Amino acid sequence: MKFCNQCGGAVSLRVPPDDNRERYVCERCEHIHYLNPRIVAGCLVTREDRVLLCRRAIEPRRGYWTLPAGFLENGETPEEGAARETWEEAQCQIDAGPLYTLFSLPHISQVYMFFRAELGDATFGPGMETLECGLFTQADIPWEELAFPVVGKTLTHFYNDRVQGEFPVRTEAIRFKRR
Amino acid sequence: MKFCNQCGGAVSLRVPPDDNRERYVCERCEHIHYLNPRIVAGCLVTREDRVLLCRRAIEPRRGYWTLPAGFLENGETPEEGAARETWEEAQCQIDAGPLYTLFSLPHISQVYMFFRAELGDATFGPGMETLECGLFTQADIPWEELAFPVVGKTLTHFYNDRVQGEFPVRTEAIRFKRR
Repeated sequence: MKFCNQCGGAVSLRVPPDDNRERYVCERCEHIHYLNPRIVAGCLVTREDRVLLCRRAIEPRRGYWTLPAGFLENGETPEEGAARETWEEAQCQIDAGPLYTLFSLPHISQVYMFFRAELGDATFGPGMETLECGLFTQADIPWEELAFPVVGKTLTHFYNDRVQGEFPVRTEAIRFKRR
Repeated sequence: MKFCNQCGGAVSLRVPPDDNRERYVCERCEHIHYLNPRIVAGCLVTREDRVLLCRRAIEPRRGYWTLPAGFLENGETPEEGAARETWEEAQCQIDAGPLYTLFSLPHISQVYMFFRAELGDATFGPGMETLECGLFTQADIPWEELAFPVVGKTLTHFYNDRVQGEFPVRTEAIRFKRR
């Protein structure tokens, strides 16, 4: 951020009065710009022991496999965002919920939420951001070619929890150093 | 938003190519500004059948009672943000977790997360944004003077769930029309 979105003046990074963090503050109108973590919402769509995975057509991690997920938009609930992303990436119309995994990635200021969803009779196919998609059993999942750690963790929780038939909310912080 | 934060040019609200939502797009450099929901993280701090409430010293809802909570900052996990807010508003040092309630308020693009925390031997007292704070039993809670619906809902869940001694994650979408 270089310029104020209110007046177009130059911003500088400094700690405003009565604050204890650096913010982008406008040198001209003093407007303070706050930056906050973003939510990524997605779905773990399942049919019995199989899960719906998408192979990414876009960077980052093009060619690797993921659960359908993406940034939550203003005006959406996380469930709505998760269902929209599932439609966009896997052309699959489901109801998202309940919440299953919640990951915080503070190094990139993201919070991931995956919701469970039953595939039921819904169809699926690759959306614009997807090369191909399909249903995988635990043995068939390309474990070495998953796009993001949160995907592997969610899939591992699913197959572990499936033994008991109970899927409590699983939360975890994943910390990496900034590249 | 009136100006581009990259080049200082004027922005207009329009649907960018390959998108289906209006965004603030710079007329000069074409930079697209995405706006995303914000997370509010807070704590339900309890000691046996009593909960820690704060009377707000700031708007909105000055003078009304709330659970300590505030906007998650970049670089924080939700648990860290919830603990920081509990320190700032109630001068109370606790470990936040596990997740208890999750509310989405799509009309204001906010997602609330309340974490349970045990007061233990920790002390508390009003921080800068708090007029007073204290421990309340169910009967003593000023139910008619709570600052936000998410506060009353979290407290109600707590006293209902306390009967069983189990506190599963409770999720709900709260929808109001824009004022």
